[in-house]
Order: sequence, then structure tokens, then C-alpha cells
Amino acid sequence: MKSARITKPHEPLEVQQLEIPKPMGPQVLVKVRSSGVCHSDIHLWDGGYEGLDGQILKTTDRGVKYPLTPGHEIAGTIESLGDQAEGFSKNEKVIVYPWIGEGLCPACRSGEENLCDKPRSLGVYLDGGYSEYVLIPSFKYLIKINDDLDMDAAATLSCSALTAYGAVKNANLKPNDNVVIVGTGGLGLMAIQLARSVTGARIIALDINDDKLKNAKDNGANDVINSKKEDTVKSIMELTNNLGADAVIDFVNASKTVEVDMQFLRRRAKVVLVGLFGGELKLGLVSMPTRAYRLIGSYTGTINDLAELVSLAKRGVIKPLISNRFKLDQATQALTMLKEGKIAGRGIINP
Amino acid sequence: MKSARITKPHEPLEVQQLEIPKPMGPQVLVKVRSSGVCHSDIHLWDGGYEGLDGQILKTTDRGVKYPLTPGHEIAGTIESLGDQAEGFSKNEKVIVYPWIGEGLCPACRSGEENLCDKPRSLGVYLDGGYSEYVLIPSFKYLIKINDDLDMDAAATLSCSALTAYGAVKNANLKPNDNVVIVGTGGLGLMAIQLARSVTGARIIALDINDDKLKNAKDNGANDVINSKKEDTVKSIMELTNNLGADAVIDFVNASKTVEVDMQFLRRRAKVVLVGLFGGELKLGLVSMPTRAYRLIGSYTGTINDLAELVSLAKRGVIKPLISNRFKLDQATQALTMLKEGKIAGRGIINP
Amino acid sequence: MKSARITKPHEPLEVQQLEIPKPMGPQVLVKVRSSGVCHSDIHLWDGGYEGLDGQILKTTDRGVKYPLTPGHEIAGTIESLGDQAEGFSKNEKVIVYPWIGEGLCPACRSGEENLCDKPRSLGVYLDGGYSEYVLIPSFKYLIKINDDLDMDAAATLSCSALTAYGAVKNANLKPNDNVVIVGTGGLGLMAIQLARSVTGARIIALDINDDKLKNAKDNGANDVINSKKEDTVKSIMELTNNLGADAVIDFVNASKTVEVDMQFLRRRAKVVLVGLFGGELKLGLVSMPTRAYRLIGSYTGTINDLAELVSLAKRGVIKPLISNRFKLDQATQALTMLKEGKIAGRGIINP
Amino acid sequence: MKSARITKPHEPLEVQQLEIPKPMGPQVLVKVRSSGVCHSDIHLWDGGYEGLDGQILKTTDRGVKYPLTPGHEIAGTIESLGDQAEGFSKNEKVIVYPWIGEGLCPACRSGEENLCDKPRSLGVYLDGGYSEYVLIPSFKYLIKINDDLDMDAAATLSCSALTAYGAVKNANLKPNDNVVIVGTGGLGLMAIQLARSVTGARIIALDINDDKLKNAKDNGANDVINSKKEDTVKSIMELTNNLGADAVIDFVNASKTVEVDMQFLRRRAKVVLVGLFGGELKLGLVSMPTRAYRLIGSYTGTINDLAELVSLAKRGVIKPLISNRFKLDQATQALTMLKEGKIAGRGIINP
Repeated sequence: MKSARITKPHEPLEVQQLEIPKPMGPQVLVKVRSSGVCHSDIHLWDGGYEGLDGQILKTTDRGVKYPLTPGHEIAGTIESLGDQAEGFSKNEKVIVYPWIGEGLCPACRSGEENLCDKPRSLGVYLDGGYSEYVLIPSFKYLIKINDDLDMDAAATLSCSALTAYGAVKNANLKPNDNVVIVGTGGLGLMAIQLARSVTGARIIALDINDDKLKNAKDNGANDVINSKKEDTVKSIMELTNNLGADAVIDFVNASKTVEVDMQFLRRRAKVVLVGLFGGELKLGLVSMPTRAYRLIGSYTGTINDLAELVSLAKRGVIKPLISNRFKLDQATQALTMLKEGKIAGRGIINP
Repeated sequence: MKSARITKPHEPLEVQQLEIPKPMGPQVLVKVRSSGVCHSDIHLWDGGYEGLDGQILKTTDRGVKYPLTPGHEIAGTIESLGDQAEGFSKNEKVIVYPWIGEGLCPACRSGEENLCDKPRSLGVYLDGGYSEYVLIPSFKYLIKINDDLDMDAAATLSCSALTAYGAVKNANLKPNDNVVIVGTGGLGLMAIQLARSVTGARIIALDINDDKLKNAKDNGANDVINSKKEDTVKSIMELTNNLGADAVIDFVNASKTVEVDMQFLRRRAKVVLVGLFGGELKLGLVSMPTRAYRLIGSYTGTINDLAELVSLAKRGVIKPLISNRFKLDQATQALTMLKEGKIAGRGIINP
Repeated sequence: MKSARITKPHEPLEVQQLEIPKPMGPQVLVKVRSSGVCHSDIHLWDGGYEGLDGQILKTTDRGVKYPLTPGHEIAGTIESLGDQAEGFSKNEKVIVYPWIGEGLCPACRSGEENLCDKPRSLGVYLDGGYSEYVLIPSFKYLIKINDDLDMDAAATLSCSALTAYGAVKNANLKPNDNVVIVGTGGLGLMAIQLARSVTGARIIALDINDDKLKNAKDNGANDVINSKKEDTVKSIMELTNNLGADAVIDFVNASKTVEVDMQFLRRRAKVVLVGLFGGELKLGLVSMPTRAYRLIGSYTGTINDLAELVSLAKRGVIKPLISNRFKLDQATQALTMLKEGKIAGRGIINP
Repeated sequence: MKSARITKPHEPLEVQQLEIPKPMGPQVLVKVRSSGVCHSDIHLWDGGYEGLDGQILKTTDRGVKYPLTPGHEIAGTIESLGDQAEGFSKNEKVIVYPWIGEGLCPACRSGEENLCDKPRSLGVYLDGGYSEYVLIPSFKYLIKINDDLDMDAAATLSCSALTAYGAVKNANLKPNDNVVIVGTGGLGLMAIQLARSVTGARIIALDINDDKLKNAKDNGANDVINSKKEDTVKSIMELTNNLGADAVIDFVNASKTVEVDMQFLRRRAKVVLVGLFGGELKLGLVSMPTRAYRLIGSYTGTINDLAELVSLAKRGVIKPLISNRFKLDQATQALTMLKEGKIAGRGIINP
């Protein structure tokens, strides 16, 4: 089978010919139909993230091994099943939950495998979906889809939409909350759709691009602010009767954005930090208790969350947006375009 | 009536002769039997807290007005009742919930008056318990106690124990969690008692004083670490099989302590920030989502929490510790001793 | 002022001329503009409910005293304020939270006054809104509305919509849940609107009237079943892949409906019982643990829930439906029509 | 290997010689050291439960197949591992989580396998621990224990203690709650230990045997009532200042006990139904909403709950009580004694 692989950081991805894995025990082999291209794939390609004091957190220090087939947003069809795999038959359409844990830690045992102590995520620690086939460790990580759901749209549910959904859940929004969504790219737009569909909260979207903000409004934002043109803090205070926001979901999560976030918070506010842009925040410690703030790191979501998203997408309550489609041998081009900000919605590889 | 008042920051408290207030509507006049002396009274006396970049957050900017009668830990007896006050009769013993809100914000409406947008706390925004009598805005802020409960011990429930309890609740501990309690003064000891009594978690206490750590162990800590003598991070990693702590409750909440806290956290860890020591933290933003950390500011507790504490104290499940007793005209001395670290447990004024 | 009062059970309501109350302390006098006519007013008029073994639970045994001015769904304008009332000024538009508690029990202290041990609800234990003026025990029970919200629509939020919302919250619905709404009168329709707006669940509506079911579909039900014409259990099992419903909200709550409810439940299902129709259920005790069912009694909602509803209604997310308007002297006629099933949506008295 | 098996209902168990299973994929073979004898084994032996209107719910209708090796409370040592099993090595001591699900339903996906739509519990649907060896479907169902924990005591954690713990969690107790524990056998005593250790609630124990009630008191009950000698409802109302109990956990769950439970409930009370004794309750439907009661069926617990129990037991916070030990060929005798009420605490088979 052909797989597009990162052989080492910064080098163009190499399309290699690998042997098709044979599923054993509960494993399942999935024929990949669609594999999403995600910002975090760029970090794998770059070999790291920017951490505290500008130092780089290397992916290899976190257990990533090269060569690696990236791709954690996978939709496809069942190709073959191990002898302990159940509940699926050949050619059935599925999406894959990629945030796999080792199974023994408290996170795994309470259904939060995405927060496992020793994660084994597909496309990160195990070979992923930039490939004709992918081996899934257990049938339990598969969710059936049907013809109501387009394969490409389905693929993006397992990270792009799931991360947005996890963040919206962590914000624990009520209908009389004012929530600020920072960044209206693919994740931000999906968060807006979700907040509108399942929380009833009033949504204020922030970005620096008027086109994206128009899009945000079309997807359900009640108010939008262009932080380049307006005084963000002042605008939000005005929109909230000088009370401040009840919650912020920051899909950028860079020094610049979070510093601003901290200035328009209502007492008891939750700041949900999602983006992997990096940098640091100088946090005033006394305000944490006196203002009862909560800073909440949010990382993808659970397989149950993903099943909920599939249900919403099947009924058309949410609509994932695909903007660019690539072939397997265009993987390097896909990552380059994403890095350069040239993919408006979500890019997809169809192997 | 005599009241010990802060006339302006840093000046000795002045014992003034004031007219006894007359309770109207739902108000109640309480004869003060015991009023706790709290670290936050020192901040009122100092006129501020240390905030970001060393700047001072002035109490007057937060709405405090001098002269002020401090004292928010109040136990006493009913002296007289307004004509709309119900459920109490003269001479009944009560403790007072001092974290009063304006009543219309979402916090107040969901029973979290302590986190009101426009607080009116007794002894902070309204005259408090360093006085022979105190006027309570409504009978709803009173909780009956009986002879099972010593007046002095009861008084400390409404801030010292309540803050510890709110923090323990915010840590949301499970029996297989390892929780680190930073600081084993009055609040830390009470948090240890409470964590032991209502969570089942394993408790690791941190301090820089061996006597206090011995005390921590006697109050229920499973393990203790002297951060002056031991490598704190290394010790905690060893105690937790190199997984790190599931939760930290930091009763100091200074740059120095929180910087260390951030180094021994398990994925999904909660850091509950309680102390008002001040300073700032350089927070690495990428680790927040990837490690799924939560930083939770914790401020006192709700009146329902206080009722729960009263129930626990009545049955002897928790035991508040009183170390020093003062007269009303010794208020300045009480605050001075507290500021200089000369009060081991909790000081009380008996007017 | 004129008030339409129940002087004793079953007698026509009497319009009496009463003295206008003068608000004292935190009390507020509200000029009633709109007062909803509710099924539970009929129970007050009848003097009781049907309980176990057909015995009647008398209202007077629960503390109701006649003569009584009913009316707990009240919208109006501020007429005058007691000297401790704050945050409102004359002529401001407000709705009233009528589910008032005595203030000292755990329910009251945690913001659930509607579930107080010794309730003092307006229009039930205290004189209510079938009157030109109504005295509100505290400004804290008022919520401001503005011109975005019609007075008549606003009035119905405080019981009709609030009860529906409380029930939807108690069902704790997830987007991949199948919820069955039993009864599509005013409450059922509002529950459908709310479940659609804030949960993402798939909604199956049950009724015995095709017109009402069409209405249910227009308000957001995904599927509808006429229980008179179809085999309800079979239809629901088919719609849920033979798994059964994850939740039921029963706005009738009669023997007949609940017996059927118990036959189409998925393991872990919640049965939310709301209606006051009465009767009894023969409940199989072993199935409770083995099937992990939950039967949840749901009674109105909290003032915070009401504030959330006001926010949703202001933005047009939910749309209360008013079908009939009456004058004060038509109160008996209004109750009679309601009792006879001749009010399709919600009736309102405009004093 | 030798296994004690139910060949058909009511017949003496037969010790059969079976081939030792070979673990494949993630499976693990455990050498059984201790296997608890549970009341629900009697239902397997009897072939059914008593349901509504006295009809029998047959085990075979729920998917049970004979011959069956019962035994779901299993502690032992690792004998051998399938090639995908990880994290354990030969001879390590483990206890087994027996409440295994099929892995794809929402219950399984959220860590509640015990409430799976299509359960495959060990000793119920799959061969269990009345045997020299037992095959575990995945290493994920094993929890390590160490020498701090006796094998026999450990075994009882996975059902007896787990069911008690699940029930205590479902009661969601607060320190100022009054909880009534109905039945002070093995489960009731463990519930008392757990409620005392992790909730702070005040515990009232009910039974009809003074010796057992003395035992209840020694294990942490604050008050005890002999329902044979005292008027239960009256006694509980007195102990609760005529408010009634905030929660009941009924380990009998028979018509007789639950009928009484329903008479001493405070508004908002939770009734947690656990026992499998059977029968039916005539439930008054109107009281459910007006009194805001909750009836909660509680069935065993999650693997995460079991890990929490292991942590508590290791530290001696809870102490499982073993009263009788049997050999494998005494299995029939063990079940007979249990059925006849001759086992005071918990019986254990040591194969």
C-alpha cells in the first residue's frame, strides 16, 4: 500500500510502498477514503511546539517516532477484521476515533482516552491516515456512518469538530452566558455552529479578517469584532453591559490573544485554551481567587463526544466545511498550503 | 456600641463608640460573641494586594470604604429582629454567612453569592464583627448552631474553614487521586481534615516547617514534604509513581509556590489557587491543552457549603483549631501578630 | 385594587375590591399587565389532586388558604419599591419569579427555591397575579425584560416555559439521545422548542391529536406518533433501532401514559415526570437496578433557569405561544375553558 | 482445569474438568485465588427473578446460557497473556472487573460498561471464577493489587463493595444530608463504611436484627433503627426534625421496604434501589413532581469506581469482611448457605 510519510522533520513527505497490515485479535483494517489535514500535522512535520521562554518542545521527547504516517482524521470502509473484532462487516462505512490510550489509566477508564497518560494516537504515535490503508487497534474505535454523511465531511469530525466540541463542553455554557470565540477558522466556525445548536448562549466572534467574520455571522455568531480595527476589550465590555464575558474559547491560544482575553472577563469566567500556537502568559495570581477565574486546557474530545457529533452531522444540525481536496502524493503541498494560511476551511486527502 | 475600626490603611485600629443599629425589614441584629482574625483583614489594613508586575490592587478601587469595621468570621446571639425576619428568636446562637451579594446576578441567583458581581461582604464592604453588635442584611444569612459547637470554633467556619472547603470542592477529588496541599497553616490543616473526611483522596502536605508538617500528619496527611529540605518535584514524582499529582491546592498562591506546582502535575491535573499572597506566574500556553491542565481560582464558599461545615463540626468530624484569643481593644495587636506569623492556628476576638 | 379570587373550591371566582398593599423593606409592588392561566390553577380551584389509591390530596392540607388570588405567571411594571429594594425603578418592565421559598432550607440555599421545604409561592400560598397589583416579597424575585419581549409572552415564561425547561434539564439530554415528549400542549411544545435549541437530541413527540402533532413537528419534533392510531411501543422501538428511548418527559404523568413509557425504555433511561394529572403506577422493582432506570419528578425551575429563558426569548430562540386573552372579570370563564380543553396554547388575563 | 458449574437451574453445581483456555490477542488467563459468592449467583441458580405481578424474569430470556461457571468476584494471579495484552507480567496479583460490555454502546463509550446494552459479564454471560482458571477478554479489565491487600478481601471489591459504592455515588450525598441505609448485610455495611469515608453524611441504618445493627454502628452508622421493634417512619421523622430523609439506599428493594421508604422522604429526596429481592411498588404519580422525588436504579459500578475502591482498601480506609471460606467442590453448599441466610458477611471460594 502507498503511504505519505514524514521521514524526518522539515523534509518533504515521502510516498512509500508498505506492506498492508493484517488485523489480529480485535484489530480492524480500514481502507482510507478521506483523511483530514490538520494544523497539528504541521507540528509533527516541524518536529515541535513553542513552549515556555521560547524553548521548543520536541515531538520526539513526547514519544513520536519517525518515519511516521500522519493523519488522524480518518473516514473509510472496513477492509478486513481480526478474529476478535465484532459489530462490523466488510465495506461498511466508518469514521475512526484516533485518540487512543493505553487503557489502564484513570482517563482511559473513565472514557477520556484522549487524555491518557501514555497516548497512542493514530497519526501521531501510530501510523495514520495519509495512506491507502490504516490498522485500527480495536473495533471499539470505529463509529458507523451511513449515506446521510459525506466521507470527507465525516473525516473532519474526529479532530476539527471534536476539538471544537470538547472546548464548547469545557466552557459549560448556559443560555444567558456571553461567550467569546477567538479565531474563526475551521475550528472556530464549528465551535460557533455547536454553541448555537446545543447551548443557547450568545456568541461573540473575534478575528482580524472581515471575510471570516462575515462567515462567522452566517454560521451563527450573534456579534463579531475585528480585533485589528476595534478596541476588543472596550467592544466586549459594551456588548456585555460592562460585566465582561462569561467564557472565552481561544482557538489561537497565543500570548497576544490570551493577554487580551484576561482583560474582558466577568467574575467566574472560564477561559478555555485550545490552540497550539504557543508562547506564554504572565498570569496575575491574586486575581485567580478573587475573581474566581478558571483557565481550562482543552484537548480534542472523547469517543462519546464523537458519537454525538456523528449524530448531529447526520441530521444536518452541524455542517463541516471542506475547502480543499488533495491526492496522496500532494501531502507535502497540502501541509505547505495549510502552513501558509492558504486553506480557508479544511483540507482533505483522498488516497 | 464599641467597634474596632480601620480608619485608614496602616494606622492602628480605633475603638469607636457607635450607635447600635436597629434592624428593619428582614434584617437582624447579632450580638457578637466571637469574631475571627483573618489574613484578608491584613489586606484591608494594608489597603491593597500585590497584583501583576508588582502593582498594587487598592482595596478602595474594589469599593472598600474607610472607616471600616473589619471581621467577617462572626458567631453570636440574636439580639433583635426586623419585622420581616423569621425563623429565629432572641438569644439563639448563630453563625453568620458574610459573603453577601446584591442578589440579582447569576452567581447570586444560583446560590453562589460569594462570587457576586457586586459583593457586599460583611467586614469588607459593610461593617463587620470587630464590634459588640453587627447588623445582618437578612435572616437568610444566619445558620443556627447549638451547644455542641463552641462559639469560637464556630466563628472560624465562615471563612477559614469555608475557604478550605470551597477549595477542596473545586479540586473535585476522587479516592484514587493524589492531592498536594501547599501550606499547612489554619486553612491548609482544615483542608487536610476535610479532604480526609469527605473525599478519600491520598493527601501529600507541603510546607517549610517541620512542626507544622507534623501537625499536618496528625490532622490526616498521608505524606509530608519539607520543601526547604527536599527536592519537592522529585519527592512528589516518587510518591506518585512518576505520574505526578492529580490536584494541587495552593494556600500560598505566590510565584514561588505555583511555579513549583506546575512541575509535578499529572495530565488532567487541577491547580486550585486560593492564597492572596500575590505575584505572577509565567504560564506556558501550549501545555494547557496538550496536558489538559485546569487552573481554578477558588474564593470562599457558598452558604450551603457553610451549612455543610456546621453539620460536620457539630458531629466532630472536623475540629477547627483556635490558638489565640483577644479583646476588642487588642485588635491592632491581633492583626500585627498575624502579620508577623505569630499566630499558629486561628486568632479570635471576643468583644 | 380589583382581584379575581377563589373564595372556596368549585365556586366561581369573585372579583373583590382590596386595598393596594404598600411595599416595605425589600418588597416591591408590581402593576400586573399579564397573568397566565395555568392548569395548576384548576387544582387550586378544585381544592385538590388525585393521589395514591384514588384518594384526594387536598390543597388545604398542603397549606393553601382561601380566599386566594391565584396567578403565578406574572408580567408587569414596577409601581413602587420598599426602602430596602434595589436595582429597579418605577415603570420598569419585569417578570416575576413566583416559586418563592422560606429561605433557610438547603433547597433555598442552593438556588432551588422552587423545591423549598416550606414554599410560599405567589398565587398558591400568597396572593398572585389575577389582580391589578401584586406584592412581591423581595426585589430579588424580579427579572427585567425590555421591549424585545411582549408582556403576555413574558408572563408564560415563569411557569409554562419554566416547567418545560426544568424537565428538559432534568432529562440531561445529549445529542445522540432519543427523547420522547409525551403530550404536546403548551408545555410539551415549549419543551420541544427548548430541547431543539439547547440539547441537540432527537425528539419524538407523542399525542393523540393529529393537529397538535403537526404543530409539534413545526416546533422542532423530529418524529411524531399518534398513540391512538399507532402501537406506541412498537413505533418507538422501530425509531430507535430496537434500543428504546434514552429519556421520556411525560407532561401528562397519568397511569395510562407512564405505564406505556416504562415499556419503551433503553437501559439507563430517565423518565421525567411532570404532569399533575394523577393516578398511580405499578412499578417493577427489580428492573430499576438491573435496567438502571431513573424516575425523576420535575417541578417548575429555579430563578436562574428563568433568567436563562428570558435571555432565550429576548433573542427569539424560543417563542411562547399565547392563544387566548381574558379580562379580570373573565377569570372563571378562563379556568372553565382551560378545564374543558378549549385553550389550545396558553391563556392570559390582562387586568 | 476444574470448574464448578451450573448445568441447569436448581440442580447441584457440577465440578467439571475443562480444558484450560489459551489467551489470544488482548486476552489474559488468570489463575483464580479467590472468588466471591454473591446473592445474584443464587438468581442464576434459580433461573430467574421475581418481576411485575409475580411473574418470573427468566435468566435465559436475558441471554444467560447453561452450563455456566458462575463467579464474578475474582482475585488471582496472572497465568499467561495474549500477544496484544500489555502492562502485566506472570504471577502479578490482580482483581478482575467483571462487568464487561460489548464496547460500542454509549454506556461502554463513556466508561459505564456495567450498564451496557448487551452485557457480557463474567460469571453471568461468560464463564467466571468458580474455577481454577478464568479467561479475561482484555488486560484492560484487570487492576493490580499488592501485598497490602488480602486476596479474599480484594475479590469482594468487584461486586459487593462496588455495588455499595455505585449506590452511594448515585445518592450524591452531602455532609448535611440524612441518609437511610436499608439492610445491613455485606453490602449495607460496606455502604456505611463508604458513606462515612467519602461523604460526611449522617447515616441512619435500618434492619430487623439487633446484632446486625450493632455491627452497623461499629462500622460507622450514626443511628440505627430496628424496623421490627420501632415505628420506622416515626423514628426517622424524629431523627430528622420532621423533615424526612434526604436519601435512602435500599439494599433489599422489596415491596415492603420501598413502601416504607416512600413515607419518610424529604422533598427532593433520592431513593436508590439496589436489591434484587423483587416485587412491585404502587407509586403515587403526582407526588413525584410536587415532591421532586427521584427513584434511581443502581447496578454495580464502573471500572474507575473499582480502581477507587482498590485505592481505599489498600490504605485501610475501607475493610471488606470475609466470613466463610469454601473449596471449589463446596460451591453448592456455599450457595445453599447463602440462600438460607447462614452467611453473615461474605463467602469466598478458594479454588
